[in-house]
Amino acid sequence: MKELNELIDRIADRVNVNLREPSFDAGPYIRGFISPEKFYRFYAFYGLTPDHPLRFHFRNSSLAGSYFLGKCFVEHSVLYKSDIRGDELKSRGDIFSYDGMKIPLHDDEIVLIRDSFLLKTLVHSHSNDPESPEEYQIQNTISMHYANIHGSPVEGSFLGPFSTVDLTTLHDCVIGAYAYVQVRELSHHQIEPGQVWIHVDGAFEFSYQFAKDVLDRYIRHIPGKAPEGVFMEFAENLKGEFQQVFDKVRAKPPIPVPVGAFLSNYAVVVGNSRIAENVLVAQRAYLENAWLGKGSNVQENCYIVHSTLDGNDVTAHGSKIVHSRLGKKVFVGFNSFLRGSSDFPLMIGEGCIVMPHTIVDLEESLEIPPGHIIWGHIQSRGDLEEQCLSLEDFSKIEKGTHIGRMRFQGSGEHFVNSIRHRIEHILEANGAFFDPATGANRGHAQKTQFITFNTIQPYSEGERQGLYPSIDIRP
Amino acid sequence: MKELNELIDRIADRVNVNLREPSFDAGPYIRGFISPEKFYRFYAFYGLTPDHPLRFHFRNSSLAGSYFLGKCFVEHSVLYKSDIRGDELKSRGDIFSYDGMKIPLHDDEIVLIRDSFLLKTLVHSHSNDPESPEEYQIQNTISMHYANIHGSPVEGSFLGPFSTVDLTTLHDCVIGAYAYVQVRELSHHQIEPGQVWIHVDGAFEFSYQFAKDVLDRYIRHIPGKAPEGVFMEFAENLKGEFQQVFDKVRAKPPIPVPVGAFLSNYAVVVGNSRIAENVLVAQRAYLENAWLGKGSNVQENCYIVHSTLDGNDVTAHGSKIVHSRLGKKVFVGFNSFLRGSSDFPLMIGEGCIVMPHTIVDLEESLEIPPGHIIWGHIQSRGDLEEQCLSLEDFSKIEKGTHIGRMRFQGSGEHFVNSIRHRIEHILEANGAFFDPATGANRGHAQKTQFITFNTIQPYSEGERQGLYPSIDIRP
Repeated sequence: MKELNELIDRIADRVNVNLREPSFDAGPYIRGFISPEKFYRFYAFYGLTPDHPLRFHFRNSSLAGSYFLGKCFVEHSVLYKSDIRGDELKSRGDIFSYDGMKIPLHDDEIVLIRDSFLLKTLVHSHSNDPESPEEYQIQNTISMHYANIHGSPVEGSFLGPFSTVDLTTLHDCVIGAYAYVQVRELSHHQIEPGQVWIHVDGAFEFSYQFAKDVLDRYIRHIPGKAPEGVFMEFAENLKGEFQQVFDKVRAKPPIPVPVGAFLSNYAVVVGNSRIAENVLVAQRAYLENAWLGKGSNVQENCYIVHSTLDGNDVTAHGSKIVHSRLGKKVFVGFNSFLRGSSDFPLMIGEGCIVMPHTIVDLEESLEIPPGHIIWGHIQSRGDLEEQCLSLEDFSKIEKGTHIGRMRFQGSGEHFVNSIRHRIEHILEANGAFFDPATGANRGHAQKTQFITFNTIQPYSEGERQGLYPSIDIRP
Repeated sequence: MKELNELIDRIADRVNVNLREPSFDAGPYIRGFISPEKFYRFYAFYGLTPDHPLRFHFRNSSLAGSYFLGKCFVEHSVLYKSDIRGDELKSRGDIFSYDGMKIPLHDDEIVLIRDSFLLKTLVHSHSNDPESPEEYQIQNTISMHYANIHGSPVEGSFLGPFSTVDLTTLHDCVIGAYAYVQVRELSHHQIEPGQVWIHVDGAFEFSYQFAKDVLDRYIRHIPGKAPEGVFMEFAENLKGEFQQVFDKVRAKPPIPVPVGAFLSNYAVVVGNSRIAENVLVAQRAYLENAWLGKGSNVQENCYIVHSTLDGNDVTAHGSKIVHSRLGKKVFVGFNSFLRGSSDFPLMIGEGCIVMPHTIVDLEESLEIPPGHIIWGHIQSRGDLEEQCLSLEDFSKIEKGTHIGRMRFQGSGEHFVNSIRHRIEHILEANGAFFDPATGANRGHAQKTQFITFNTIQPYSEGERQGLYPSIDIRP
């Protein structure tokens, strides 16, 4: 373990240099925190398909349990059970549009992770930073349990558990637990735990701040200790189910997989679950008595328990849906937690939008009518008053409003349209609209069908224990 | 499969160019012979330990089910379920002695397989060729089921099923089924099926030729067809047992593994089997009601069924032992087939030598007294007359003799001593003499204990179906 411990120290130093301004010490978050044998107990794996450009390069790193797809470079980093999905990286020759500028790519884009420590983190999509269109870079960064880095480079930053950095370039920032930022670029900022902040310059700004007592109940994080709260307990209770899927090299799908659908070998399926055509179930998704209608997707770290999705529903990375029924084309944003029960089920009507980082944890049954948007923390019907609007009403906002703990400025119509546009893009990218007759509209669900996995393990003894050899893979 | 089929054609062409003198056509032996889906159904794997120099490089090859350890390069080749064990390769700075010459190595040695087709072939040890001490090369070569390439480069050759090339450099040779050669160097030779030939220039020569009808019963090979006979049936009957061990990424050992012993995850253990200290059981070994005494080893493709090995016994690659009891320090050479039955068991006394490629297939119970050497084809006590000698008597041969189908020339003492010397080396190399108190005499059994495996799979669709990506692995 000697070299691995040295590596962890070096990563802490790199992050601390970047975060010297807020005087942040990353050490207690990553030292002695994962029990040593876990670094060499789990294997990492990378996917190989005829449809994705192939290039993996791993050097001087520890990758326990991590998953890679697309072009990925990892150097001098510790990745623990993270999912690095580079299947939406841009290609050489593509034109990247940004604020009207057209930027042609001179190389295939790669995910480049350097001097970083990621713990169960999801890294997806591609660089939205016009300054580095060919490199989706994560550098000098620490990212804790179930954080999402989605769509932009991150440098010199600390991401708390269940936080999401979405389409936002970060330089030297601290993002608190369960905070969500989608603001294009942030530098030397400290984001409070439980803050949800979406900002498009000159167009709109949405923000919501969870109350401290609510946040503490769901996720709290004390330096040097594992995060605690409902979110952690929920994942811990079900983690045993994942062991079996990772012990096998190959397995027959546990349930039928219809035309155009994809069910990852590394997803858990228990109880009476069913998936329809064009459904995508990603690795580390969990289905229990889940019925997934045509074109729905269940992304990494999502849990669908005793629930029905009517079709073309999006459950973004890390969301959890329990005892719920979702009408068609419902969007459930990152790390949302929707928990009904058999006594108090949750119904969400067609075309609804559940904002990222929304908590619905019911004390009575609840129905969200079609075409509504919800956010914040909802336990009962009364909570809807300050945390739900019809999309029609939201679109009528012209200058701004505030409702309860939510503040909005700018054009509601612009805001709603931009979310709708994104949902359409997500469905398309995931293959929801695939037509088997013509082969048109292939997306992830179809492109990933012929995936095979290669596994990599670390040295299990000696000074390099827990570290992986250098591996370079090309087509 | 397009590119894989092209590769197979190119390999046949390369081999045919080398074998143009005997006008040999390799095509029918490798084209359309393995059913296509097998090339992408099985994964290959390479071992990683703190004790073995690490370097793997695979390019433009198909590696279905193959195993690698040590420094291995494979280019433009098809390897099907082969074991490439480079754990005895020489290191940079070593001095390689050859006929009194001292050759210092300027690089670590590598196994280099190019433009070749190996089918369930075992490649082991290192180059014994003073002309290429840093490269253990197999080039423009086809090697069929359960052939052994042991200890020297092979170029432009065809090796029949169950043949063994041992400490012998081959240039443009055809080695018949179940032939064994250990003659240092051969060029443009054709070795008849069932010929056993050991020759050390100026010292001794041993040869034995199996009768055609006997050979046909055990192994016969018609171009364009799978080999047939008792040897193939024996392996086929038990191959289902191997599936389960290859479906798991990791598994607990099925039986206790005592101090200093190593039991490969990729060995099959059924029935009431037991292994003692310092035992080595390699990948693709099969144990069924097998009791293995201290320091014994069971190498690749060996089967030990209803048998007891008293200790420090060597079962060389591919040997099979059924309903037998071996006293201490018995040596069973490559691809020997020792089959007693519950009615007619086989007993082999302490210190006996079973020559490579010996068939003992009993019609009555049989006991070989301690300190004897056997060869050829033995079914009953009467057969011993022409196929067994005490080592004492053999050592007394001064000029030569012939007994039945065996011919010997030169010094019997030299011959016996050279085998004994080799047995001692094999036991030492495998860790039979390991002392856990001091850590002295570590060998393969101990050095391999901390092995982890990485798996590699091919493209499962498209033009590259069945081919593996290029992979380069360094420490």
